[in-house]
Amino acid sequence: MQEAIRIVGIDPGLRRTGWGLVETRGNALRFIASGTVRSDDKASLAERLCQIHDGLRAVLSAYEPDEAAVEATFVNKDATATLKLGQARGIAMLVPAQAGLPVAEYAPNAVKKAVIGVGHADKKQIHMMVKVLLPKATFEGDDAADALAIAICHAHHRQSMTRTLAALSG
Amino acid sequence: MQEAIRIVGIDPGLRRTGWGLVETRGNALRFIASGTVRSDDKASLAERLCQIHDGLRAVLSAYEPDEAAVEATFVNKDATATLKLGQARGIAMLVPAQAGLPVAEYAPNAVKKAVIGVGHADKKQIHMMVKVLLPKATFEGDDAADALAIAICHAHHRQSMTRTLAALSG
Repeated sequence: MQEAIRIVGIDPGLRRTGWGLVETRGNALRFIASGTVRSDDKASLAERLCQIHDGLRAVLSAYEPDEAAVEATFVNKDATATLKLGQARGIAMLVPAQAGLPVAEYAPNAVKKAVIGVGHADKKQIHMMVKVLLPKATFEGDDAADALAIAICHAHHRQSMTRTLAALSG
Repeated sequence: MQEAIRIVGIDPGLRRTGWGLVETRGNALRFIASGTVRSDDKASLAERLCQIHDGLRAVLSAYEPDEAAVEATFVNKDATATLKLGQARGIAMLVPAQAGLPVAEYAPNAVKKAVIGVGHADKKQIHMMVKVLLPKATFEGDDAADALAIAICHAHHRQSMTRTLAALSG
């Protein structure tokens, strides 16, 4: 029997950071949990970053994933928005790395391609496909659904990588 | 005798994060230490963020500052550069906040104004004024000098704030 690998996907944001956990075993994909870490927008930036850090650390402690995947978001908005996102993203990558997990990064197009099959899709299509691929999945919002999509993307990529390695060594 | 307050200034960057420690007591300002936390550019982004985190945490453990100040840099370059800076800056704000320190943010113009007296100055002028204000200061590069300038800026601001509070309560 193939080994089960638990993956946490993270969709970082200063206000809301979505997270989603899936387990992959061979071709099978199973929903574990999902949620959103919220930061208090009345708190200082430094405190908010602490809240994101503590929230994500609690998720890792509770579900003990083996690998992490974070979206490499490109922002088309202003520099201030990009800087804010970068700050949250720094924390989202730090927490799993501190826990000793390998952290993969995927561009939004790669995530959409893995879930929908094409590089362009809207939020609603992503939600629907996450539900198709993980029938037992529950998520309360866009961020948790996106995080699950990132985890699914990583499950696909690591599987084809494993297959290639097996073919090379076989 | 007035209480001595130890301030750490941080100039965040993914490749090099400068740090500088000063002690302020009334009008007096004293150099404590400065340095640069470097990240290995051959390592993954997540590992580099861990290196910055661990490096800054070691600085706080060694010098036990009371307050922190971080530059609120605006980047005029592309979104990728801004995102990178944001990631490093997130860590630079997280570490002192985790240690329970208040974290102040200063715009580059405020830092220059505090050190030079005007809002525009080049690196060389900042180095010279840091040397004038902290005669015993040693620093190996731009990042450590900038970090000391940020710490000096916070020392000035917190002093005028203290004075205002004293006048209001007196």
